[in-house]
Amino acid sequence: MSVQQLILNPRAERRLKMGHLWIYSNEVDTKRSPLKGIEPGAQCEILDSNGKSQGYALVNPNQLICARLVSRKGAFTRKTLQRRLEQALALRERYFDHPSYRMVYGDSDGLPGLVVDRFGDYLVVQISSWGMEQFWEEIVSALQALCKPKGILLRNDHQGRKVEELPELCEVAYGEVPEMVPFEENGVPLVAPVYKGQKTGWFYDHRDNRAHLNRWAKGRRVLDLFSYAGGWGVQALAYGATEVTCVDASGQALDWCEENAALNNRKEDLITIQGKAIDAMKSLIASGERYDAVVLDPPAFIKRRKDQKSGEAAYRHINELALRLLEKNGLLVSASCSMHLASDTLLEILRGAGRHLDKNISIIGSGGQGADHPVHPAIAETRYLKAHFVHLSGTLQ
Amino acid sequence: MSVQQLILNPRAERRLKMGHLWIYSNEVDTKRSPLKGIEPGAQCEILDSNGKSQGYALVNPNQLICARLVSRKGAFTRKTLQRRLEQALALRERYFDHPSYRMVYGDSDGLPGLVVDRFGDYLVVQISSWGMEQFWEEIVSALQALCKPKGILLRNDHQGRKVEELPELCEVAYGEVPEMVPFEENGVPLVAPVYKGQKTGWFYDHRDNRAHLNRWAKGRRVLDLFSYAGGWGVQALAYGATEVTCVDASGQALDWCEENAALNNRKEDLITIQGKAIDAMKSLIASGERYDAVVLDPPAFIKRRKDQKSGEAAYRHINELALRLLEKNGLLVSASCSMHLASDTLLEILRGAGRHLDKNISIIGSGGQGADHPVHPAIAETRYLKAHFVHLSGTLQ
Repeated sequence: MSVQQLILNPRAERRLKMGHLWIYSNEVDTKRSPLKGIEPGAQCEILDSNGKSQGYALVNPNQLICARLVSRKGAFTRKTLQRRLEQALALRERYFDHPSYRMVYGDSDGLPGLVVDRFGDYLVVQISSWGMEQFWEEIVSALQALCKPKGILLRNDHQGRKVEELPELCEVAYGEVPEMVPFEENGVPLVAPVYKGQKTGWFYDHRDNRAHLNRWAKGRRVLDLFSYAGGWGVQALAYGATEVTCVDASGQALDWCEENAALNNRKEDLITIQGKAIDAMKSLIASGERYDAVVLDPPAFIKRRKDQKSGEAAYRHINELALRLLEKNGLLVSASCSMHLASDTLLEILRGAGRHLDKNISIIGSGGQGADHPVHPAIAETRYLKAHFVHLSGTLQ
Repeated sequence: MSVQQLILNPRAERRLKMGHLWIYSNEVDTKRSPLKGIEPGAQCEILDSNGKSQGYALVNPNQLICARLVSRKGAFTRKTLQRRLEQALALRERYFDHPSYRMVYGDSDGLPGLVVDRFGDYLVVQISSWGMEQFWEEIVSALQALCKPKGILLRNDHQGRKVEELPELCEVAYGEVPEMVPFEENGVPLVAPVYKGQKTGWFYDHRDNRAHLNRWAKGRRVLDLFSYAGGWGVQALAYGATEVTCVDASGQALDWCEENAALNNRKEDLITIQGKAIDAMKSLIASGERYDAVVLDPPAFIKRRKDQKSGEAAYRHINELALRLLEKNGLLVSASCSMHLASDTLLEILRGAGRHLDKNISIIGSGGQGADHPVHPAIAETRYLKAHFVHLSGTLQ
């Protein structure tokens, strides 16, 4: 089998040498090696402008990021795939007691375009590139052999596939997968809606930040905004919060919150409000409600660079509202999953919000993704999550 | 009592309005309000160039940072001091179960020039400005009333006082303070050498990062470089590490390690090596020693901007050595307390070290200071600590 070659422009190999895995279409010397005509998902050898091999990549000629390196030495094969999966599992088994985690995190695990979330006996797989799509059967059978799951679900109905022009589908690829799968996070028993939920059904990425809040939850009244299925709120209840209010625009998400609260025998202390977070905050402020802790974990407001300014203003606005809902000595957990919002920028937004309200705030902690979402040190794009823990001491200094 | 006034240059009040507390000597309009002649430690009212009051500051006319704001409204008095101490204590009591913490962290607690570390029944106080020095008796009596301690030690023999041209002394200001004071961190019983140790005798700032390591310590062999009194190493032993090797240049520090290990009944599993960390690492590499986890928590290599380049090279060097001491799937905890080394720069240093060694590394966590070292959102200088948790998966992708 002959492998096509892609030749890079002079010095375009520099990023790869630093450890990055992406190749942009304008870095390819298309005169010497046209992208046109390459099948989406094909594997190509990457050469620098002097003809020196830089490894092998999976290619989609129609994308801005037209190729992602999958091997520095030798072609990427079923064997390579298997070794990468073993390596990813070894990392998780090293740092987690319970098999509830993101088992494969794309580029960071040397498997661009692949995400696998493990919920105890069940695996949910998301493939987002033509390159990885070629290997889907091998992925399913390798996961079977490695994890001995009861079922594997392909959640291939997400936005990423639309962009890549891949067909959308959601189907069981092996065994049986129930509607709600049991798992745990920070020792708390939970269920995830793997078919109908967002992404794979759960957001494991905030695990450590939730653990940070859990330590302080006992005896507190907590407001959980953009609650989804109760990742923050239900865990706070399980760790002894007296009462938790979950706010979400989706009634179904709030049903899942209730199901998770019931699992922890705390359903009677969960209040749910269906509606937009901003509307709910305004009405809670108006009615004089104040909380010991407010969790603000919104969806990404800055999905593209062009949303930067309006997105930052939106973060500023909801953070001000959240601060106004705190008791004195209360705690705001201010999170963002926007890769384009730097942790320091969010801190600056918080500073501005505090000054504008004439309130004195201190940052008592800052966190990122858990160990199952490892950051690739050469790929800044793999680090997207941030949470600041903001103590409100009340009076202005 | 009339208070002197300092008038700022046009627009020099901008930083204060953003929430910062510092005034540089070149920001003062010395024609209208000469710094010369102001007594070190005097309190002055700060006016912007239009004569509008910005609050009150404690002044040292001989320093580059010649004044630090201590109040936005009304003069700083015994009463203000007391309120600030109460506020600082309220924050700690909110987030800590045991009275072992930094109780006052300077600017972040609205008390520039003052640090108070609490070790259960004992308090250690460090004053580093002429301004705070004027209040030392009030500080001691307010702390007595607030905390009911058995003893208060003034550890006023540190470098910061030399710079400020304050007399150096170390004396008991109230009650009695033993040589080694008992306290706890992350549930581990410890003692701190409050008279003879570095700074106040203990570094509470890494508490959360140590907790992060403790979760994974069970069954592991750990190397603790620049160990001091065993903050990382002894805690890892207490959490089930099979064996810990502490390396420090000071024999006395290693004695303290042994004392702390004995307190946790793990003295027989502690190995100590007296010597420079670099020499020790080289000799351990040569003898083929490899560890499951290596902790690299060096003193600040970049104390001034001019040390930037050489400091970064030094971090790079020791991080490469540390990576070479890891088993496959091992964990490097790479810390820095250099305010001038950004967290992202340390990450870039780690990336470079991994590439240079042809080793594949993932960042599985990143942490900063604990809640008792709150970051002031307007004062970047209050955020100095960083630790990256680096997983070594061995093969190059």
